[in-house]
Amino acid sequence: MNVPLRTVRVNLESRSYDIEIGSGLLDAIGQRVRQIREVTHAVIISDSNLKEYAKQVEHSFSTAEVRCSRFEVPAGERSKSVDQASALWDQLLKAGTDRKSIVVAVGGGVVGDLAGFIAASFTRGLDFVQVPTSLLAHVDSSVGGKVGINLAGAKNMVGHFWQPIHVAIDMCVLETLPERDYRSGLAEVVKYGVILDADFFRFLENNVAKIKERDPETLAEIIRQSCRLKAYVVENDERETTGLRAILNYGHTFAHAFETVCGYGELMHGEAVSIGMLCASRLAESMGRISAEDTKRQTDLLASLGLPIDVPPSGHDQLIAAMQKDKKVEHGRLRFILPTKIGHVELVSDVEENLVRAAMKHDD
Amino acid sequence: MNVPLRTVRVNLESRSYDIEIGSGLLDAIGQRVRQIREVTHAVIISDSNLKEYAKQVEHSFSTAEVRCSRFEVPAGERSKSVDQASALWDQLLKAGTDRKSIVVAVGGGVVGDLAGFIAASFTRGLDFVQVPTSLLAHVDSSVGGKVGINLAGAKNMVGHFWQPIHVAIDMCVLETLPERDYRSGLAEVVKYGVILDADFFRFLENNVAKIKERDPETLAEIIRQSCRLKAYVVENDERETTGLRAILNYGHTFAHAFETVCGYGELMHGEAVSIGMLCASRLAESMGRISAEDTKRQTDLLASLGLPIDVPPSGHDQLIAAMQKDKKVEHGRLRFILPTKIGHVELVSDVEENLVRAAMKHDD
Repeated sequence: MNVPLRTVRVNLESRSYDIEIGSGLLDAIGQRVRQIREVTHAVIISDSNLKEYAKQVEHSFSTAEVRCSRFEVPAGERSKSVDQASALWDQLLKAGTDRKSIVVAVGGGVVGDLAGFIAASFTRGLDFVQVPTSLLAHVDSSVGGKVGINLAGAKNMVGHFWQPIHVAIDMCVLETLPERDYRSGLAEVVKYGVILDADFFRFLENNVAKIKERDPETLAEIIRQSCRLKAYVVENDERETTGLRAILNYGHTFAHAFETVCGYGELMHGEAVSIGMLCASRLAESMGRISAEDTKRQTDLLASLGLPIDVPPSGHDQLIAAMQKDKKVEHGRLRFILPTKIGHVELVSDVEENLVRAAMKHDD
Repeated sequence: MNVPLRTVRVNLESRSYDIEIGSGLLDAIGQRVRQIREVTHAVIISDSNLKEYAKQVEHSFSTAEVRCSRFEVPAGERSKSVDQASALWDQLLKAGTDRKSIVVAVGGGVVGDLAGFIAASFTRGLDFVQVPTSLLAHVDSSVGGKVGINLAGAKNMVGHFWQPIHVAIDMCVLETLPERDYRSGLAEVVKYGVILDADFFRFLENNVAKIKERDPETLAEIIRQSCRLKAYVVENDERETTGLRAILNYGHTFAHAFETVCGYGELMHGEAVSIGMLCASRLAESMGRISAEDTKRQTDLLASLGLPIDVPPSGHDQLIAAMQKDKKVEHGRLRFILPTKIGHVELVSDVEENLVRAAMKHDD
């Protein structure tokens, strides 16, 4: 694979950085980071499924004459815990990590969130670099600076806004990404089209075949567009104070409920988001906010990409209860990000529960 | 006690805040914070020795119609641990803490550092208020935004720069502060004079009797001046990037070595700083950087305030080894903040070890 390098700049004053998308970046990361800042010690954090990528990154830094310490956590969401963070802090200390060291996260969302949390806190903050290895991490979690860990029963409850100094997206990792993980990432890609960019949505509709066969050039382009759109949101609402960043949660209130009620792992995050977006669009339709045609375009695109579109068979009472526990709910009133057309969404408060229930019934 | 309210503004753009120094502030804190921002839920964190102050603060918030959750940690440095932070995170979650809640730290340096660490991380950052209850916290730890916890064998290794939104210094708490704690705080006060302000140093020399009898008006003035000087440093080097903030460490390289070798608790922090400043000044003298007269003025002032001035009987080899483990040491070379006159200090690198040893012998 050989795709030309694409760069997306995230403009956040002194915290600005580049997202680079290309091929062969894993092997070049050591030299690349040395162009950004002086570095003599890199702490590489990855998970048990990604040993080879982590070693590749380690080799790249070693070749660039940077001392490396490499740590591995068990793969899976359970590693985003206080215990794992505590173990890593101790490991960093023993490895002689100081304020000039950098943290390099090699992995998907779990590793990025956890390693970023460690970077944000060790010696009051270390520079860190994201090397995301899944499509979902490419287009979502590696960009924007949200890092954190879970408490029992509460995802991402402890964390920070801590921007990376660089994001390196090596397209090569997509060649071996399992099909289900790949499709899961595509749901977030479709989301960007719905919430912000009708042209991009149309581009996806027109390139379904190439996307499904993982055409590198097409993929690089949709990753670039997704990162560009996420960067726009983050630039205008870095710390979730203006409300703009909430639009990234399109489909997510439903999705989190599906994930909670079905149990994490049953449904992958992107799968839950796929179904959740369609529920949100049907909900908007029932409120007269969007046309049936625009819901159908979403359903058709998601289905053609191989994503699930039907609500899992769970009790609606349980799902509604789960939604009311969402971090974004205020005083128990249901709020949703709802589309008015492809390319535009709005925050809608005080949505009637019976409409929410009806939107979860899909009887096309 | 009734002293007029004094205010020191800390100018840090969107993170600016006021330090208020006066009497009766504990009883007024609820209303005062409500003037700064809307608040419906306050999480009050204090330690087992400060139950009465914490209840007073709780009552003030309750009277201002703010829901309160009050948590207590064991008194002492050991509470600045991952385990204690983890327990507090869980307690905050159970108490229904959300992004609009505030954290109120009622205590000395340990409580302020720990509660600030919790505030900096829960739901990616909560507003927090410092209500310091010791002189040392009044003039040092409650101002400037350094928060954190310890790892085994490494103080403050995990933490953040997280500014409070308000600091309320109620002079009344000084009436019951134990004599040794009170004197310990005075060492940091003297430090501000040496590093930045000869006039302030002279003010202290001229008011020893009033300081010793804890005259409220004199005390309020030295707290205001100390906060003003610390604010100046923090405003110009919030995140320790320009080097200015390092001047606050005058005497501290020696002091940390005394604390480590003598065991924490044997020597109070301010006591160690008192001796450490005199070692640093003698070291500067031996390098021809400061006059013997200026060292003598420091010795006389500290002694007259009842602070220890003699190096504790410890092996110099042990003390030198401890200094070399200091976070601020680079590549094992000893660096010190050394005075050139009362009111001015400089960072001096690569100091010869034999001079450091000689400075720890006090044979006046």
